[in-house]
Amino acid sequence: MRVRNKPWADDFIKEHSDYIVEDPENWLGKWSQKFSKNQPIHVEIGMGKGKFIIEMAKKFPNINFIGVEIQKSVIALALKKLASEELNNVILVHTDGAGVNTFFNHHEISTIYLNFSDPWPKKRHAKRRLTSPKFLDSYAEVLKEDAPIVFKTDNRGLFEYSLVTFNNYGMHFEYVSLDLHNSPENEDNVETEYENKFSKKGPIYKAIVKFDNKKED
Amino acid sequence: MRVRNKPWADDFIKEHSDYIVEDPENWLGKWSQKFSKNQPIHVEIGMGKGKFIIEMAKKFPNINFIGVEIQKSVIALALKKLASEELNNVILVHTDGAGVNTFFNHHEISTIYLNFSDPWPKKRHAKRRLTSPKFLDSYAEVLKEDAPIVFKTDNRGLFEYSLVTFNNYGMHFEYVSLDLHNSPENEDNVETEYENKFSKKGPIYKAIVKFDNKKED
Ligand SMILES: C[S@@+](CC[C@H](N)C(=O)[O-])C[C@H]1O[C@@H](n2cnc3c(N)ncnc32)[C@H](O)[C@@H]1O
Ligand SMILES: C[S@@+](CC[C@H](N)C(=O)[O-])C[C@H]1O[C@@H](n2cnc3c(N)ncnc32)[C@H](O)[C@@H]1O
Repeated sequence: MRVRNKPWADDFIKEHSDYIVEDPENWLGKWSQKFSKNQPIHVEIGMGKGKFIIEMAKKFPNINFIGVEIQKSVIALALKKLASEELNNVILVHTDGAGVNTFFNHHEISTIYLNFSDPWPKKRHAKRRLTSPKFLDSYAEVLKEDAPIVFKTDNRGLFEYSLVTFNNYGMHFEYVSLDLHNSPENEDNVETEYENKFSKKGPIYKAIVKFDNKKED
Repeated sequence: MRVRNKPWADDFIKEHSDYIVEDPENWLGKWSQKFSKNQPIHVEIGMGKGKFIIEMAKKFPNINFIGVEIQKSVIALALKKLASEELNNVILVHTDGAGVNTFFNHHEISTIYLNFSDPWPKKRHAKRRLTSPKFLDSYAEVLKEDAPIVFKTDNRGLFEYSLVTFNNYGMHFEYVSLDLHNSPENEDNVETEYENKFSKKGPIYKAIVKFDNKKED
């Protein structure tokens, strides 16, 4: 997602420092101070303009949501949306998701969402994919035992890569849909911006996977 | 696949006992006697009318192929096709694929193909799916170490189920395609009857998986 540079973004971010963090390492171990209630934390990485996380926060008031986004001009748009709502269970973090293990404690997070992550189709860019082993290393550190990664994408190549990578990493598959919008589970689905835009073009894929690789009998 | 009962099938099978076996347990440890050359054995389970296995046998003369099919009227049609060819590297077996471990030795088989297996969409019939854990138990016994199951289907529900089941069983994913006919690997693809018939209706899914679950770095 490329968005034109927003000259107002810097000021807007400064004015709304209740909702957005640019120095997440300084909040290590202190995230509960950012929220009005001490409750489970769910993290979305590559949150984009925030549609999904804001709707989730409304739907699940008993969960604290943290949205991570690397592009300032994009997170500024999410912040704008968030600032117009009265929500005390969402915080945005402007940083690279690769570093989640530098600002969350071991086993602090209850769910990680990856929605329509950039596909990086070229093989030599595979390391940049948010489902590549280096990223999984970070997620594994911060996720609680038995806590899932919930991954959605419309990109076939990225989904094929991710299924193989999750499996080869030793992760346990809880759920796979190869056409979410025509699956019974779609009833509870909260759409992201990209999902809303691209789901007419082809199937939406979804996987729920965990690091705990128990063998089922 | 339902095919009308073929009155000629019994006689035809008897006349072609070089190509077809109805008492596979009696051939345990002796399959090489059935072939003119001692070479790796690949098995297709639920072979249907034989298009795939006969084309594979022509393409790979250095492999011995065994096609397993449970329905007599269907295997008789495959036998008819086979009898019109001069191939010394295909044998058909009329039996239930669930029993492969009763007529193959431990680690005897180099590849198992499952093509467009009956989907059994109802949950209570899941045990009949050729990728269910009970079947995997049998395959695990007869496959050589590091030997793959090569699975193709057009059925989304069966593929979703199979990905989860393979993973939960501890199998290693080598390859996943969610649209084989639009993947580079399609170049080498040998189509089955069902594939030929149904690939216009939607994507063909393919997975290559192994029992040896090594973690990749
Ligand atoms: C294709 S967009 C999808 C946005 C949103 N999740 C949706 O579904 O509409 C991917 C987003 O991930 C962000 N992103 C890419 N790599 C990232 C990283 N390493 N850390 C944080 N965000 C990242 C991009 O800036 C972009 O906004
Ligand atoms: C949908 S057809 C596909 C045939 C062929 N593989 C193709 O792709 O064209 C499935 C076949 O599997 C056979 N089959 C189902 N269960 C079986 C079992 N347990 N053992 C052997 N064959 C089985 C059926 O009789 C049927 O011929």
